[in-house]
Amino acid sequence: MAGSVFGQIFKMATWGESHGKGIGVVVDGCPAGLALDEAKIQAYLDRRKPGQTKYSTPRKEDDAVEILSGVFEGFTTGTPISMAVYNKSQRPKDYSAIACCYRPGHADYTFDMKYGFRDYRGGGRSSGRETIGRVAAGAVAAEVLKEFGIEVCAYTKSIGGITIDDSYAGDCLYGSVQDLRANMMKSPLYMPDPVASQKAEELLLHKMQEKDSAGGIIECIVSGMPAGVGEPVFEKLDANIAKAVMSVGAVKGVEIGTGNMAAQSYGSCNNDSFYSADNTAILKRTNNAGGILGGISDGSNIVVRAAVKPTPSIAKMQHTVDKNGTDTDIEIKGRHDPVIVPRAVVVVEAMTATVVLDMLMMSMLSRMDLMKKFFTL
Amino acid sequence: MAGSVFGQIFKMATWGESHGKGIGVVVDGCPAGLALDEAKIQAYLDRRKPGQTKYSTPRKEDDAVEILSGVFEGFTTGTPISMAVYNKSQRPKDYSAIACCYRPGHADYTFDMKYGFRDYRGGGRSSGRETIGRVAAGAVAAEVLKEFGIEVCAYTKSIGGITIDDSYAGDCLYGSVQDLRANMMKSPLYMPDPVASQKAEELLLHKMQEKDSAGGIIECIVSGMPAGVGEPVFEKLDANIAKAVMSVGAVKGVEIGTGNMAAQSYGSCNNDSFYSADNTAILKRTNNAGGILGGISDGSNIVVRAAVKPTPSIAKMQHTVDKNGTDTDIEIKGRHDPVIVPRAVVVVEAMTATVVLDMLMMSMLSRMDLMKKFFTL
Amino acid sequence: MAGSVFGQIFKMATWGESHGKGIGVVVDGCPAGLALDEAKIQAYLDRRKPGQTKYSTPRKEDDAVEILSGVFEGFTTGTPISMAVYNKSQRPKDYSAIACCYRPGHADYTFDMKYGFRDYRGGGRSSGRETIGRVAAGAVAAEVLKEFGIEVCAYTKSIGGITIDDSYAGDCLYGSVQDLRANMMKSPLYMPDPVASQKAEELLLHKMQEKDSAGGIIECIVSGMPAGVGEPVFEKLDANIAKAVMSVGAVKGVEIGTGNMAAQSYGSCNNDSFYSADNTAILKRTNNAGGILGGISDGSNIVVRAAVKPTPSIAKMQHTVDKNGTDTDIEIKGRHDPVIVPRAVVVVEAMTATVVLDMLMMSMLSRMDLMKKFFTL
Amino acid sequence: MAGSVFGQIFKMATWGESHGKGIGVVVDGCPAGLALDEAKIQAYLDRRKPGQTKYSTPRKEDDAVEILSGVFEGFTTGTPISMAVYNKSQRPKDYSAIACCYRPGHADYTFDMKYGFRDYRGGGRSSGRETIGRVAAGAVAAEVLKEFGIEVCAYTKSIGGITIDDSYAGDCLYGSVQDLRANMMKSPLYMPDPVASQKAEELLLHKMQEKDSAGGIIECIVSGMPAGVGEPVFEKLDANIAKAVMSVGAVKGVEIGTGNMAAQSYGSCNNDSFYSADNTAILKRTNNAGGILGGISDGSNIVVRAAVKPTPSIAKMQHTVDKNGTDTDIEIKGRHDPVIVPRAVVVVEAMTATVVLDMLMMSMLSRMDLMKKFFTL
Repeated sequence: MAGSVFGQIFKMATWGESHGKGIGVVVDGCPAGLALDEAKIQAYLDRRKPGQTKYSTPRKEDDAVEILSGVFEGFTTGTPISMAVYNKSQRPKDYSAIACCYRPGHADYTFDMKYGFRDYRGGGRSSGRETIGRVAAGAVAAEVLKEFGIEVCAYTKSIGGITIDDSYAGDCLYGSVQDLRANMMKSPLYMPDPVASQKAEELLLHKMQEKDSAGGIIECIVSGMPAGVGEPVFEKLDANIAKAVMSVGAVKGVEIGTGNMAAQSYGSCNNDSFYSADNTAILKRTNNAGGILGGISDGSNIVVRAAVKPTPSIAKMQHTVDKNGTDTDIEIKGRHDPVIVPRAVVVVEAMTATVVLDMLMMSMLSRMDLMKKFFTL
Repeated sequence: MAGSVFGQIFKMATWGESHGKGIGVVVDGCPAGLALDEAKIQAYLDRRKPGQTKYSTPRKEDDAVEILSGVFEGFTTGTPISMAVYNKSQRPKDYSAIACCYRPGHADYTFDMKYGFRDYRGGGRSSGRETIGRVAAGAVAAEVLKEFGIEVCAYTKSIGGITIDDSYAGDCLYGSVQDLRANMMKSPLYMPDPVASQKAEELLLHKMQEKDSAGGIIECIVSGMPAGVGEPVFEKLDANIAKAVMSVGAVKGVEIGTGNMAAQSYGSCNNDSFYSADNTAILKRTNNAGGILGGISDGSNIVVRAAVKPTPSIAKMQHTVDKNGTDTDIEIKGRHDPVIVPRAVVVVEAMTATVVLDMLMMSMLSRMDLMKKFFTL
Repeated sequence: MAGSVFGQIFKMATWGESHGKGIGVVVDGCPAGLALDEAKIQAYLDRRKPGQTKYSTPRKEDDAVEILSGVFEGFTTGTPISMAVYNKSQRPKDYSAIACCYRPGHADYTFDMKYGFRDYRGGGRSSGRETIGRVAAGAVAAEVLKEFGIEVCAYTKSIGGITIDDSYAGDCLYGSVQDLRANMMKSPLYMPDPVASQKAEELLLHKMQEKDSAGGIIECIVSGMPAGVGEPVFEKLDANIAKAVMSVGAVKGVEIGTGNMAAQSYGSCNNDSFYSADNTAILKRTNNAGGILGGISDGSNIVVRAAVKPTPSIAKMQHTVDKNGTDTDIEIKGRHDPVIVPRAVVVVEAMTATVVLDMLMMSMLSRMDLMKKFFTL
Repeated sequence: MAGSVFGQIFKMATWGESHGKGIGVVVDGCPAGLALDEAKIQAYLDRRKPGQTKYSTPRKEDDAVEILSGVFEGFTTGTPISMAVYNKSQRPKDYSAIACCYRPGHADYTFDMKYGFRDYRGGGRSSGRETIGRVAAGAVAAEVLKEFGIEVCAYTKSIGGITIDDSYAGDCLYGSVQDLRANMMKSPLYMPDPVASQKAEELLLHKMQEKDSAGGIIECIVSGMPAGVGEPVFEKLDANIAKAVMSVGAVKGVEIGTGNMAAQSYGSCNNDSFYSADNTAILKRTNNAGGILGGISDGSNIVVRAAVKPTPSIAKMQHTVDKNGTDTDIEIKGRHDPVIVPRAVVVVEAMTATVVLDMLMMSMLSRMDLMKKFFTL
């Protein structure tokens, strides 16, 4: 069964392994007439590129994207947009340790169980490098959304329990994400609160010394959303966001709005009351709902959170078994990201953008009256 | 865009509004040769039926299911299984309050924004009655899974902050769900810990007096899972479970394994180490992963949690606006469930069963060697 | 794998067996705000109802449709439209002959091979009664299309080699289908040429005396099509029409425009030249393409033809085998349609309407400029 | 809407324009463990490569395929197989004629209507070069099918009315396709009858002198099919083949078995009678059904035919209009294929193989008894 195709109208098909010839994506269903070039895609990819800070793996990878199809004279043509990042250095390395061993917290064992064998070089298809395709596709989606006044911004909310101050958090009601984005981009950890960012850096240095790793929380805000996007009862906007975000490796939890805290709240407290803004618009006073009611956007900002587990690759000795089922120990060599969160921020942003665009397009097909007007355009 | 069809191989299409002629589902893709009758489906539906305790709406609904197709001489034929629950009493009622007003926390406003108007009778399609179709389909999925030795069991983990003692929780490693199910069925709130259940009942009575409502947490355990189920990178088992569970009305958060707590953990602590069980099987010592690594089942129990918001229908006065955008107040009449959790337990179980079966079937198509053996069966 | 769900945006899920409790369909993805009632659906179903002429099986079936959901106060709500035709008389009959025997030209053998057993009563799911769901869904699609000025009209082009005169055929360029429909409805065989219709009736009476059956050709015209509908390279308009029409039982060939004759033609003859109509429109002088170029509608009428095989149920003695693999003979009792074509006309019309609507909706999502205008509506 | 993704379990996503950077495909859902290398794919691509005979465009294109992912140490890994053919020479050419003009019989006009503009270089996405992706994917499918003993062989049945002698045609019952393939490969037109092939060559030389082109018929045989493949009622094997084949540019008609001739036949003649072969197998005496009954394979060879229109690119002067809607004339420069049929043969074979594999995999999920045995493998 094909698991590398995502979306219903705006679709992507990703491909590639960590240490194969390259990584790429085919984006199908992008409307014609969008201004697009490689620089726009590259800006997104650069945010997930390794080797930029001491908190990420020092592998030097250019991750330069090439657009192979679907763009003509600077605009999308409506046909598939194929994008690829070719792997530059494919030096033969010694993978004997991970080839025979099942690394705890990794997909080595499950890939072998599922497929009978696996491309073990650098994690193969289960490597985080797989997300290059997602980010490239998400960049296209984000460019389309911008044309409709919709902005998607993800950022690091917490690392290892160190959480940003609420004053730096994304606006949960109707505001823009401009300040949030500006603050977030100043931090090597994409953490908009400079104090928390500094503390988190210290924690990570400590974890690195301990040959250990940390997890964290990514939050994503969608501003400028029109009301009416999302398809009950299964293709709800929140349901599709949950799938998209949970499909990112290392994500173990997804929340919308107040999320898990809603379980401890009461109706009178959790309901967002409506009010009339000068009889021109219907607004909400709070946004516990995270911008989605009954699976449909309500016009307020969409708020999503992803809980990311600690990097499973650690240098500390761990117990495990080898392919033959013999108990053994493993120390994972090389330097790995002590936390995945900062590099996963743009992946969550990309996946959210993809879903929001897919469902925005679907929402154009909900009403006879608007469709009839469309055909007179 | 069609939002009421779910699944890729084992599919369901649900239909029906709260106060229309009925509610139903067409299950397509169920293998031929499964023993099935209405009693088996009814057992699941009875768990979500209202009016059984003082903590659920006292509406008397039979919710008797009828199988209309796809079963012949007691066995599924491989063709679509159509199931319907006809609404018995469709007495004309006074809906003027909710017809013109947007109830906070409900989908009234978003349905109007999306479709231009809505069937306001009892919430129409956005009513919890919609889940009848899901539960009937999930019951079929669960019956198929049983034939493969897989059991799915959901239960109430907490209500309004009152949480069961860990000794009553579902087994997170390799055990069965039999005791869990037995304990859970003894509680009117489907809460396996009798002390916590009693406390939660008291909390609910108190909330009802306050004209308010509570939320809670549902946990779902899948036991007997073979390793190798789930399709990287988008059709991961956890990603599809997240979508399925988040698509249930009132769910605002989904977690796998340790879930959100993983964000505060460290790699050395969160990784589950493997060990060899007498050289006959590869097992894990812990299950922080919740039975899924890299989106593929690892053979341990699958652990899912859903955070459910408090019932939005409360008798307390709330501020809102009407269809014309005029500020107004609303007190929602009638008696409503003071908590949705107990009735949603079987819905989460049904949705999880549906996804697990869908992906179990897909997983049969992963390997040439096994497929070749299949064709010699 | 689920084979009873059709469409991508405008979807249908059909269910039911010939002699089960009923036949039905769930239509998902119909836009909100379409005026719809049972009478509109019934008008389409009546065209496939048996027992209306001596050339169809004399079974008396009301085939009265009931709308169970998705319509409120006379308009579609955007939620699933469930429609059912309940089987009135389910008298126990003697099916022993067909229960054990494989009727030539029928799906008895292949159903047993696929599913291990089958509902043999009246053909079960492989009966022509299955098409009731398709016609009901197609009726909804046709009603939507009418709102956009698009009309779909199928008719009998030939029976057993007797073909209508070209003067009665559907307009292959830009004209309406009104005259065609009027002429077609006058004939018990839905054959718009009265002379050919008369000859075909005689042929059928002769075939009935011989205990034999005939085949024929159905043609379908779509008028009022805008240019730009269809999605290269796989979701081409003609490709989807081909699937939809070939999925109708007994159809063995599908053609677009000149169809198979194009194989014997030359480029200079087969190409349709364009011309300018007063500089206000770009038109074609001929329509060998059948209204589709490169898989996209070109604004001229769409022309589809389906070749229908002779009814496989004949009273003549035939050689076959039974379930145990023993050679035997069979004479199929009861009176059967001596030709399927007239009753299949509305089925081809329904399937074509469904595809055209599905792709018309998709085509709204092709261009940034038009989508941007849409969001300012 | 995404139109470049095909298949449900075995999926492909194709990309690329005639004169862009390249053409490619991502194959997703191929089982792990298939022996695969570039040479196997190249053998299929070479059959559609131009410049091999005087009856095809003399463009020199290597069309050398590169596998970018999904294969490790000579075997498929179960992850996406990305394949690309990079365009070698992208010399700037003068496209002003076709940039502004709508070539009759081409998709120039419809692409402009749909997308607002188009990549006009060499036809862009609507060029026949698009089929490179299909053929590469089909080659993978064919390799999988071979492992199950299934062979797919397409060949030229007729060109411009010149048809092969029946003695050279594909076996319509249960035989292999080996002789057919051997004979077909001897002809530059892939026409297994040497006399007809010679006559067709003469016809084509004549048409080239006349600056005109011809059409023809492609037939495709699938041998070794097990019974039970195909999913009623919409995902019938013949319905999906019809879509796949009709989606190939220039195909205007698709037939199964006797196809259109069935419309003039009678039930007693068209029905294939069953017989028992020594009580070990149930066979048919004839194969008018083309191997498919009720949309499910019956174990006999599958027979498909595609009617291909004459090449629309002809050097003869034609009337048309330009982008501004002004009448003009056009003579299409350069040498074009005087007939598309021979190069389309492998495309029809590829698309058929893709569908057959997709549905073969689905058919494994039809029965509880076989699935239960599978899980004990």
